[in-house]
Amino acid sequence: MPSPPLITLLTDFGLADHYVAAMKGVILGICPDARLVDITHQIQPFNVAQAAFTLSQAYPCFPAGTIHVAVVDPGVGSARRPILIEADNHTFIGPDNGVFTFPLTKDPHYTALTITAEHYFRHPVSQTFHGRDIFAPIAAYYAAGMAPAQLGETLCDPVLFDLGPPTRISDGVWSGRILYVDRFGNLVTNFRLADVPEITGRRFKMEIGTGVTSWYHPSYAEANEGSIFLLQGSSGYLEVSINQGDAAGSTGASAGTSVRLRLM
Amino acid sequence: MPSPPLITLLTDFGLADHYVAAMKGVILGICPDARLVDITHQIQPFNVAQAAFTLSQAYPCFPAGTIHVAVVDPGVGSARRPILIEADNHTFIGPDNGVFTFPLTKDPHYTALTITAEHYFRHPVSQTFHGRDIFAPIAAYYAAGMAPAQLGETLCDPVLFDLGPPTRISDGVWSGRILYVDRFGNLVTNFRLADVPEITGRRFKMEIGTGVTSWYHPSYAEANEGSIFLLQGSSGYLEVSINQGDAAGSTGASAGTSVRLRLM
Amino acid sequence: MPSPPLITLLTDFGLADHYVAAMKGVILGICPDARLVDITHQIQPFNVAQAAFTLSQAYPCFPAGTIHVAVVDPGVGSARRPILIEADNHTFIGPDNGVFTFPLTKDPHYTALTITAEHYFRHPVSQTFHGRDIFAPIAAYYAAGMAPAQLGETLCDPVLFDLGPPTRISDGVWSGRILYVDRFGNLVTNFRLADVPEITGRRFKMEIGTGVTSWYHPSYAEANEGSIFLLQGSSGYLEVSINQGDAAGSTGASAGTSVRLRLM
Repeated sequence: MPSPPLITLLTDFGLADHYVAAMKGVILGICPDARLVDITHQIQPFNVAQAAFTLSQAYPCFPAGTIHVAVVDPGVGSARRPILIEADNHTFIGPDNGVFTFPLTKDPHYTALTITAEHYFRHPVSQTFHGRDIFAPIAAYYAAGMAPAQLGETLCDPVLFDLGPPTRISDGVWSGRILYVDRFGNLVTNFRLADVPEITGRRFKMEIGTGVTSWYHPSYAEANEGSIFLLQGSSGYLEVSINQGDAAGSTGASAGTSVRLRLM
Repeated sequence: MPSPPLITLLTDFGLADHYVAAMKGVILGICPDARLVDITHQIQPFNVAQAAFTLSQAYPCFPAGTIHVAVVDPGVGSARRPILIEADNHTFIGPDNGVFTFPLTKDPHYTALTITAEHYFRHPVSQTFHGRDIFAPIAAYYAAGMAPAQLGETLCDPVLFDLGPPTRISDGVWSGRILYVDRFGNLVTNFRLADVPEITGRRFKMEIGTGVTSWYHPSYAEANEGSIFLLQGSSGYLEVSINQGDAAGSTGASAGTSVRLRLM
Repeated sequence: MPSPPLITLLTDFGLADHYVAAMKGVILGICPDARLVDITHQIQPFNVAQAAFTLSQAYPCFPAGTIHVAVVDPGVGSARRPILIEADNHTFIGPDNGVFTFPLTKDPHYTALTITAEHYFRHPVSQTFHGRDIFAPIAAYYAAGMAPAQLGETLCDPVLFDLGPPTRISDGVWSGRILYVDRFGNLVTNFRLADVPEITGRRFKMEIGTGVTSWYHPSYAEANEGSIFLLQGSSGYLEVSINQGDAAGSTGASAGTSVRLRLM
């Protein structure tokens, strides 16, 4: 674990209300030397898949031993379990709803537990704000050195999303989808360049919503301004972009939109 | 006071301009080991009541001795006083306009002073940005250990809002109002469950704007999706909510909207 | 340099995606004791001039030795150079596109270098996210004590914007422009009070978009609510404001709008 401990926060709480600060106050009251970094608090309300993708892009940039608290929690107050995962040299704390699918899938040697140590919760535990009353204090006690075995019980079946890669439909034709749209309107697909290395040296056509492109460029700067093209994004996935433009706006595509790739 | 000192910031400055960073730079120049946490900077411009409520929800989550700087200041440049309050084991610094009503009301043993130590201000003092030139440096000197008596003079009458609880109109009928609307559209009323404990076990009707509900549930998860209901929110107040929906949008209610509760 | 080192971040990445957190994770992996402060991440996408102005307002509030990383980078992936500037007792790291015009212009004794130490980059270097792969690690190594000479080679001609002051058109008549519009709708002009000191004691007329004013006030509080007036803003520039109102909305002016001042 980094010293002092490093804790990131990812929620759908937005930045206008007091919710994020309440979590930070609770953490700092228990573990005063914790360092806090926001990943984002602008996940679309209740969009667990978007949270999972965003976390997957951010956590590998942090040093080993960082603790990531992710609270996008449409099931708060229900029987969904609060969990703590150690995977890929990081620790993840949040609801058991698929938000940790990426590190769990990447690291088959993960350990997982259901958080049951109610005496470490903040009481009374609100039925609507487990971020403040369960996840923040548990992250802080863990950061302060509490052993996982003191926080909960082994869990064998954490919830996982299907991260399905593109499907090969026929010879030279694949079907995929948009995973994520960023602030600039870049469309992150679920294709990796290694899935279809041919596109860098061969004619192809990719259909995305109402848009279509036949161009691959290694960087924005090599594309003509305004033309739509594919590049290998910083996420490692192929992204549909327009140099200094908005590919999402131009194609009408959004997260979940189908994508079809045909090699010519 | 926590060591290192902990300072929170709450403003209506937004996050797009340089204003918040300017305050942080000034604080860190005077008290380099201060730890800074944002409560929010997205208070509606000049909305002191909203700032007061948000602060009231966040500050009790922080450790005793935390310093809270709140700058929502429609009177900047006028004769309104800059003040420093010690109340409820926390310290509050900002304009004397009611923003500290909650801790002042909660703790009758508060101490208050008007900030007069101009030699600690950042000069020249702008007439439009006391956050940078007065409140940030005073918070930093206080955090660095300066005694309050060196920063100002005793103040006896800090500005207070009327926090009026619900009014009992007739037998079994109360009138209240909406205090706050959060990102999810939850409507925080000024009713506490202790004001009307009957609602958990008896038929009732609450009218909120164009909406009406007769349901109380202990958590979101026990409500049908899409139905409007009351629950005890994480704020401690009764909140009008829709499970995974937007109660504010559905009822047309906003901060200040009247609420009427009738026990049946 | 402050100890621990202080690093600010200014980008057009917004706060919804993982980009800012990725930069922070990289920095903290290399320089664990760095302290991070956001200036803003809500620069209009690709608006280098807005970024330059915002940086110019924030950096002088920070202690000497602070490192400022500014990534508004429409040319990412092109031949534009990554640079490191030491000027006005601060250090600036980002693309060579004019974003550091203000400190470079203020301090003729600056030193500048092109960042060439590829072995300190994060590999593989994405062609679309130099913030994470070049600027963040270079800032972290510099913060950790690496000598500039180990990071790059002397640069003689960093890109500068024209910061043209107002132009005197004829006797008593000046032409200027709006530099910046803030959250409150205040219009920051490129006039300084020292350019036209007469306005505090003499009749004048300033035309801004569809608006016009003949009033100068030292503070918001001395202006009538709703009336448009000039004051010396916290930026040091003359600003067009409406007390508790929105001067930008009222005049239709925005960054770049021409302004004409006539002394009567």
